[in-house]
Amino acid sequence: MTGLTFRVTATDGLARTGRLTTAHGPMDTPAFMPVGTAATVKAMTPDAVAGTGAQCILSNTYHLMLRPGPERIERLGGLHKFMNWPGPILTDSGGYQVWSLADHRKMDEGGVEFKSHLDGSVHHLSPERAIDIQTLLGADITMVLDECTTLAADKDAVADSMQLSMRWAERCKTAFPERGGHGLFGIVQGGLHDDLRAQSAEALIGIGFDGYAIGGLSVGEGQEAMFTVLDGVVARLPEDRPRYLMGVGKPADLVGGVLRGIDMFDCVLPTRSGRTNQAFTRHGQLNMRNARHKDDPAPLDADCGCPACTQYSRAYLHHLVMAKEILGAMLLTWHNLHYYQDLMAAMRHAITVGTLTAFAQAFAAAQHKYTEEETGNGDVDSELNSN
Amino acid sequence: MTGLTFRVTATDGLARTGRLTTAHGPMDTPAFMPVGTAATVKAMTPDAVAGTGAQCILSNTYHLMLRPGPERIERLGGLHKFMNWPGPILTDSGGYQVWSLADHRKMDEGGVEFKSHLDGSVHHLSPERAIDIQTLLGADITMVLDECTTLAADKDAVADSMQLSMRWAERCKTAFPERGGHGLFGIVQGGLHDDLRAQSAEALIGIGFDGYAIGGLSVGEGQEAMFTVLDGVVARLPEDRPRYLMGVGKPADLVGGVLRGIDMFDCVLPTRSGRTNQAFTRHGQLNMRNARHKDDPAPLDADCGCPACTQYSRAYLHHLVMAKEILGAMLLTWHNLHYYQDLMAAMRHAITVGTLTAFAQAFAAAQHKYTEEETGNGDVDSELNSN
Repeated sequence: MTGLTFRVTATDGLARTGRLTTAHGPMDTPAFMPVGTAATVKAMTPDAVAGTGAQCILSNTYHLMLRPGPERIERLGGLHKFMNWPGPILTDSGGYQVWSLADHRKMDEGGVEFKSHLDGSVHHLSPERAIDIQTLLGADITMVLDECTTLAADKDAVADSMQLSMRWAERCKTAFPERGGHGLFGIVQGGLHDDLRAQSAEALIGIGFDGYAIGGLSVGEGQEAMFTVLDGVVARLPEDRPRYLMGVGKPADLVGGVLRGIDMFDCVLPTRSGRTNQAFTRHGQLNMRNARHKDDPAPLDADCGCPACTQYSRAYLHHLVMAKEILGAMLLTWHNLHYYQDLMAAMRHAITVGTLTAFAQAFAAAQHKYTEEETGNGDVDSELNSN
Repeated sequence: MTGLTFRVTATDGLARTGRLTTAHGPMDTPAFMPVGTAATVKAMTPDAVAGTGAQCILSNTYHLMLRPGPERIERLGGLHKFMNWPGPILTDSGGYQVWSLADHRKMDEGGVEFKSHLDGSVHHLSPERAIDIQTLLGADITMVLDECTTLAADKDAVADSMQLSMRWAERCKTAFPERGGHGLFGIVQGGLHDDLRAQSAEALIGIGFDGYAIGGLSVGEGQEAMFTVLDGVVARLPEDRPRYLMGVGKPADLVGGVLRGIDMFDCVLPTRSGRTNQAFTRHGQLNMRNARHKDDPAPLDADCGCPACTQYSRAYLHHLVMAKEILGAMLLTWHNLHYYQDLMAAMRHAITVGTLTAFAQAFAAAQHKYTEEETGNGDVDSELNSN
């Protein structure tokens, strides 16, 4: 268990700041990790990603195992070199995407067989292969393979699935090549059932991991139900290890997660939203296709220091998204990632000075300014696609 | 005729170096101007465009008059501020796009009425309105409105069209608001007919412009025919004014144009190619979808200093284009524009030291290394679209 060093540096209620040190540098927590699915954070250069303040990115085993292949990436010097990201990289295990993207899954105790969503080719993922792939990629933080159940599953099915994931977690631990600066995280499962979550946490702690993730959330259960699970799970996790809430979330989810003691988050939301004309700001979410922006010389967010906010007007960003210009996706992604990192930095600061509760209240109050725009395109220009 | 200052600084045969000074800074010639059709050089930030060495960009009156509208851009502070490009901007007159993109054109002596390709709305463009729009945009270099004929037109039709364009050129000159650092260029027309081109040049010189463009080329006539026209036209243009070959071209066209005394070029080729997986290099053109790049750790062009070449392998660029990642378009566009600027800088240097002929020979000899890849996708990966 000497793979990753984690040190808690300050606490404020359940929230804490910390520093996780990997072979490719540190990550200050609570941290948001941008998602670089196919070895690229979509529409961003690595320099720009780092410039937003991000220290660690996430990349996806499922996508990379299908294309270009982990053995190829290893031959080319590993994922850091391949994609020119010198900082820490966390890779997921591929499990979630096998369940959400792949076709014709066939699962048993050994692992899961599936067809690629790209070309129909057949692939197999086992706990051992998931570790092997992530090791070939050169991940700093490796995730165990787990099974994902749906919210609709009954409790017995959730329990069976969780127990399978725990057996797989143990096999992952056995397969994982321990080395300095590289670590393996377990994933707590158990759906919305506190007793199953508790059994899962206990099983993982018994195996022993560099960090503990909470999986199977942000899948439609709602923020309140998610926070209830966090309240139960975090209390059972060791204080000296990082806690990672997978696939979460909206800005308000991050604030609620940090308040409950979460140290790490990842989500496609800021990047995907940047490609679908949505901007997150200190005052709520903006739909940049809305015609109200057409003549607005103001920046997206007057308090933001990102290039989209310091160099362009809302009118220009509106023009870019109406014309479906790539620069529109580039600038909105840049802004959204910058905003997410600013939010995490503000929470780290608030924890350090013991004002996180007040910060969270002010955050919630400020978020409602633009709520009328959250629900849709509103009075959107009727213009068609540009060439 | 005090709008733009142009000074020839060195000559080598017909080729020359010079400096054109505008209200927004200088442009060293021979120059290639990247195209920023809709107030953005596609897939590039303005900082990145400037970083390639580009000093002046082109933007399109037709696209901007339809969306977001020149009056709106003027209210927002002009095109330079709108798109955050502090350097010189040349705008075309909109004529070429009216003929190539718009529907239901109706033309008479006064101008042309057409329907927007975006939403079918009816617009009118006259010589006076073309000048008005470019003035609202704040163009440093304004182009006269001309009519475009097809290669297939018979000589009488080409002559009629050229004469109409000359009458429009005179109206543009009358309508153009003279001011320091801003200039108006005439456009020589006349198809492939040397006598008509001569009449056109003579008419424009009689009116008097800050610079002289050569229009109606690179429309399928072939490089040899184009060079023949240049040979005839350039000899008739004043030596103390910049000569601009519109919409050209491939790297070899630029070299041939410079050898014949052309000072300015623009073309969508490097940017469009960057979005269609093509890379221009010192050794010819590469199709980055070709499977031969899959395992290649080498850079795109070992002699190029752009981010795509210094930070990534061909294998990674191949991966990005196969996965249809936006970063692929960003990096290939960046490289192509960088390469075009490097080529122009190398020619400016060669002119200064009197070695342009030798440079052109070495250029032609080096271009054939990759010709087998120019013709198509070759052994392209069969992988499908990514999510």
